Amino acid sequence: MKVLIPSSFPGEIPSFDGVDVVVVPHREPVPEEHLDAEVLVVWRQPTPIIEDAARRMTNLRLVQALAAGPDNVVTAGFPAEVPICSGVGLHDETVAEHALALTLALTRFLPLAIERQRERKWDHYLGGAVAERGDDGRIVSLKGAKTTIWGFGSIGSTLAPLLKSLGAEVTGVARSAGERNGFPVVTDDGLDDVLAETDLLVMILPGGEATKALLNAERLAALKEGALLVNVGRGTVVDEEALLAALQSGRLAAAALDVTAKEPLPEESPLWEQPNVLITPHIASDRPRGAREFLMAQLDALNSGEQLRNVM
Amino acid sequence: MKVLIPSSFPGEIPSFDGVDVVVVPHREPVPEEHLDAEVLVVWRQPTPIIEDAARRMTNLRLVQALAAGPDNVVTAGFPAEVPICSGVGLHDETVAEHALALTLALTRFLPLAIERQRERKWDHYLGGAVAERGDDGRIVSLKGAKTTIWGFGSIGSTLAPLLKSLGAEVTGVARSAGERNGFPVVTDDGLDDVLAETDLLVMILPGGEATKALLNAERLAALKEGALLVNVGRGTVVDEEALLAALQSGRLAAAALDVTAKEPLPEESPLWEQPNVLITPHIASDRPRGAREFLMAQLDALNSGEQLRNVM
Repeated sequence: MKVLIPSSFPGEIPSFDGVDVVVVPHREPVPEEHLDAEVLVVWRQPTPIIEDAARRMTNLRLVQALAAGPDNVVTAGFPAEVPICSGVGLHDETVAEHALALTLALTRFLPLAIERQRERKWDHYLGGAVAERGDDGRIVSLKGAKTTIWGFGSIGSTLAPLLKSLGAEVTGVARSAGERNGFPVVTDDGLDDVLAETDLLVMILPGGEATKALLNAERLAALKEGALLVNVGRGTVVDEEALLAALQSGRLAAAALDVTAKEPLPEESPLWEQPNVLITPHIASDRPRGAREFLMAQLDALNSGEQLRNVM
Repeated sequence: MKVLIPSSFPGEIPSFDGVDVVVVPHREPVPEEHLDAEVLVVWRQPTPIIEDAARRMTNLRLVQALAAGPDNVVTAGFPAEVPICSGVGLHDETVAEHALALTLALTRFLPLAIERQRERKWDHYLGGAVAERGDDGRIVSLKGAKTTIWGFGSIGSTLAPLLKSLGAEVTGVARSAGERNGFPVVTDDGLDDVLAETDLLVMILPGGEATKALLNAERLAALKEGALLVNVGRGTVVDEEALLAALQSGRLAAAALDVTAKEPLPEESPLWEQPNVLITPHIASDRPRGAREFLMAQLDALNSGEQLRNVM
């Protein structure tokens, strides 16, 4: 079995008995002599390179992406019978950590502190940072903060205990209701009631048509006044015009966005200079952990005819 | 027993059977008719008001501060036989949470992200935020980060498990070596060896002469190249000239300071505009939690002749 691994593969290149592992430059089309590979690993190849591989590689049995939401692999044109698997799980820790960083930056007023620092101004009150609530009603701590994680998959399940250890009360939103890893989970049906009580809304939804603009004007209006928003899923999930209006009206006290509807965020976007918005340039993930071990397990499954993980 | 409680008391005013609780304006001298009180609670009174009380209140059996490090109460001139108790423990959660916010802001490059946001620049690489290490060798995640908490009291013991849950390896530095709450603790003697391996140094030391400028040029030179520094203890613990030099030379990749040697930080301090410094204006604490319950327990102890807690 020949496995093509991009030169951008994170960490040590896997090697396996009986597997011909070939490392190919990730920014170049797959060389003619390797079009016969049965497995293509995708990580950081440019979209045209992936689409080119989809057209020319006719022997594929598995396309293994390392991204948690490899939207451009799904739409690259691989034959329907070739399974495409995602890297769901490889980004749980990194995205949860970044989400926590963004969350605490908002609760602890760090963007405002940085603004005051530029002005050489020691403002001990800092918008309410030392009060029980911020001036705009926002939480200043996760202690007792009613927190909703919309998109309660493996990243959400990693983040939830971290938030809980700081005193937050976490509710998940997913496709099926119940309890997951000890946290209550509701569906879209119960969402508005939950939003009305939400101090902090963390979005970790995948992209695509099904989730497009789910956080729209109506949902934002259902949120508790002064709520905080953190988005580390996909930017397309948010109606950015409605988001801006909610940030300007004060319905939302502040938002931290690692993802935007269009990336890079266009220079003319008003989000850049909205004072209560913190933008990070999609840096939550991009550091898969355990990719080598995961890939080895997938190849084992492929060889032995067992169920592949993360089939999209 | 008469107990004077300042109007600035956080949360619900305690009331007790057999105790005459009097709330007095915290910015004014204690009224003549209440100088006979046996207990004075100190929280946010200006220093001259505290010093005035020390001179005029001759019936005191307890001065109960709510601050974790009430330096100005200790030096206010109360008679030596009157116990002064601190609010150690009331600030564990808030300071630990702020320390975590500052830590994650540094590991996840948030000050740089905010600078880029002002420039409307989507810089996905962001100094190494999506690499395994930052350009300056710094950690970009707490996973596996060798973390040293210098001053391993109740705040450090609250922070350590939070850092650990993100994958950090935590070592404490305190007056006695051994193990505390499951974490290894060294003394000053073992410190340089620990510093040489330290990715992240969190300072939670009290103020006063004994800790003055403990983090000096020598200690900073002992630190691992590219280390991160977070200080949520007292600013006097740091030699700020040496700190600046270490930040400029790259010995330290970045520092987040909630406290400075002089507060407010003077407008002319070069720390304000040092690019790799994040300053918050002493906002980690100032929100005591459980003050009412703690005070009730202290009064009980006083009444029954039991040991008071937090005697300074």
